[in-house]
Amino acid sequence: MALELKKRQKKETILACALDLFSKKGYLETPVRDLIDATGFGTSTFYRYFDDKEAVLKALLRDFFNIIMERVKEYYLTEEDLRVRFVETKRVVLEVFIEHRDCAALYARMSGVSDGIDACLKEFDDRYLAQVCDNIRYGIERGIFRDVTPEPVAHAILGFVKYAVYRWVVLKQITARGMITMAVKFHEYLGEGIFTKGQRGK
Amino acid sequence: MALELKKRQKKETILACALDLFSKKGYLETPVRDLIDATGFGTSTFYRYFDDKEAVLKALLRDFFNIIMERVKEYYLTEEDLRVRFVETKRVVLEVFIEHRDCAALYARMSGVSDGIDACLKEFDDRYLAQVCDNIRYGIERGIFRDVTPEPVAHAILGFVKYAVYRWVVLKQITARGMITMAVKFHEYLGEGIFTKGQRGK
Repeated sequence: MALELKKRQKKETILACALDLFSKKGYLETPVRDLIDATGFGTSTFYRYFDDKEAVLKALLRDFFNIIMERVKEYYLTEEDLRVRFVETKRVVLEVFIEHRDCAALYARMSGVSDGIDACLKEFDDRYLAQVCDNIRYGIERGIFRDVTPEPVAHAILGFVKYAVYRWVVLKQITARGMITMAVKFHEYLGEGIFTKGQRGK
Repeated sequence: MALELKKRQKKETILACALDLFSKKGYLETPVRDLIDATGFGTSTFYRYFDDKEAVLKALLRDFFNIIMERVKEYYLTEEDLRVRFVETKRVVLEVFIEHRDCAALYARMSGVSDGIDACLKEFDDRYLAQVCDNIRYGIERGIFRDVTPEPVAHAILGFVKYAVYRWVVLKQITARGMITMAVKFHEYLGEGIFTKGQRGK
């Protein structure tokens, strides 16, 4: 048990060092050698936990994505109104990006870099798209949403989030608060278009 | 004059070779040496036209962006209905991406790679955002759009386009036609939310 703990700590150390280096120097500009040196462990220790640099990046992204999905799940427990959820979930998601700025930067920068990384990002994107689609379908059944096709809506929402995070963390063109304000406004407008009429103008 | 023409042809040859190489091998994986060799020109000829590989990429992207903006301008001459324009402009834009698949791939892959490339992409993005905002403001003045804040809408539209192109050309998760169908649907829904009431349900 103590051994398990020690192993987990080593893995966590590698991940923390990697996040720090990738943020400061860039993922592409960080040789795996620098990463290993930064951990203070030997080369063989590193390779006991990870196949290569890309595997470290993927582990970082996966942990981050799990936090996002977890946080959304928690939020759903506190809010049952589907119309409110539709708008406010994105605030919850963007708050996680803001709290984990370094991970957000990796998410925003790494897309298109390699097939392996794209596949990893796609895993999260597909989970997120599926969740939004499920919610819309549920809302349609309950008469909250009009009979819309969920996929274009889910796609638009994720596209919005991706570009917002990129403008915030890479371009530094918008502030964290500005990003959230914009997300809420957009979802209100889109909500007007897809909620059933009862809600319109409210 | 003949000299001017020859110079332009050389530049065009370099751009064509670069687009071909970047598409086949990837931008990051193409050393500038390979690019120069592919053109058949000497090193000094290459550097007469471009400072480095990034300058070539930027020139390719700028030409592509100019085609997009030009095509949208042409479309506006043929369609005056602001509601139709709101939905159909995105079809026009995506058609240009489809016709220039290699440029679309550069656009979708290169974001986040370097500050210089991001600045180049941002030039286009900002022009596009400004154009969408102008159209919405114009539509508000004419009573076609509700009194919405244009920025979140413009941001959402560009975010939609970026993620659509990425899923089509990088992930190959959706087809070109699927991408357009999705764009039209999304804009219909969003239009429902931001057009003035007269149009609702039409």
